[in-house]
Amino acid sequence: MASLTEFSLTDAVAVLTRTPATLNALLRGLPDTWVLSNEGRSSEGKDTWSAFDIVGHLIAGERTDWMPRVRVILEHGEARAFDPFDRFAQSRESQGKSLEQLLDEFARLRAENLAALQALNLQPDDFARRGRHPALGVVTLSELLATWAVHDLTHLHQLSRVMAHQYRNAVGPWSAYLGVLHCAGHSA
Amino acid sequence: MASLTEFSLTDAVAVLTRTPATLNALLRGLPDTWVLSNEGRSSEGKDTWSAFDIVGHLIAGERTDWMPRVRVILEHGEARAFDPFDRFAQSRESQGKSLEQLLDEFARLRAENLAALQALNLQPDDFARRGRHPALGVVTLSELLATWAVHDLTHLHQLSRVMAHQYRNAVGPWSAYLGVLHCAGHSA
Repeated sequence: MASLTEFSLTDAVAVLTRTPATLNALLRGLPDTWVLSNEGRSSEGKDTWSAFDIVGHLIAGERTDWMPRVRVILEHGEARAFDPFDRFAQSRESQGKSLEQLLDEFARLRAENLAALQALNLQPDDFARRGRHPALGVVTLSELLATWAVHDLTHLHQLSRVMAHQYRNAVGPWSAYLGVLHCAGHSA
Repeated sequence: MASLTEFSLTDAVAVLTRTPATLNALLRGLPDTWVLSNEGRSSEGKDTWSAFDIVGHLIAGERTDWMPRVRVILEHGEARAFDPFDRFAQSRESQGKSLEQLLDEFARLRAENLAALQALNLQPDDFARRGRHPALGVVTLSELLATWAVHDLTHLHQLSRVMAHQYRNAVGPWSAYLGVLHCAGHSA
């Protein structure tokens, strides 16, 4: 475990800052086949997510999850559990919008949230402050902030898998060598 | 299978064109902890790859794999097998270079290769032309080009996983919800 990195606000913010531009470079202007296709139905019979859905989900997190939870910890500690994260908010939020509008909206909200985080001027002692997750129980502020960054990465991981899925047949026998085509869909 | 996309040169090139800018947005200027850390030793005791190693591997592919194999198909068909892909070329290629130099080099080589691909002026009939992979046997030109694009995506998938791994402990109990932390490392 010694080789794993401890939380640092600078390191977490370095990832959080880069995600909007990463998604923009990857997705803006792509043909619809990459943007609107998903991985079919899940084993529970639900529609899996397209790239468009994933960006909508990231927007919902910016609006209702990450910074609101930071504030709950700072204001209420463990006394008040976080509101549950609505994992399906994006179907309402994204309706009638283009991918380009969603990318712009995500970039704007992320920049606002990182500015608000900076304005809190958190000190090393603050990162151990505790809050209460409705399902996971006691968590710390540093765990919340680390999760915000890894949540970006889990959806980048999903996004590359959803896109690759569209060429599952097109690659022919090379599918044996392409690990992304063997991912069990753990980050749906 | 009907929902999967058939190969189209335009769609494949749309992905291939975007990868250098995507990696640039994700990686340039990131703290070393994200760029130089890997996932530890593999089950065979080998070092796994860092973000730095992955960019080096993509450079090696541009130099020795993708377009050289396109040319082998067009010039020799099945008569000449492709040269095997050296999956460890990057340790020599990248030595003494900075991540920023590698990102620039990858962007330059990719742009040159896509210009060379364009200059071939491939026609629909060409995509069924056959070549011979040293291990997989007969493959087609469209399979090779689709694989080039999905190879980018498999390494983006790996990259997000390698980065997320560094915060495996920092996220605390949230690890249960973060699919990227449950990926079995199939795209090493």
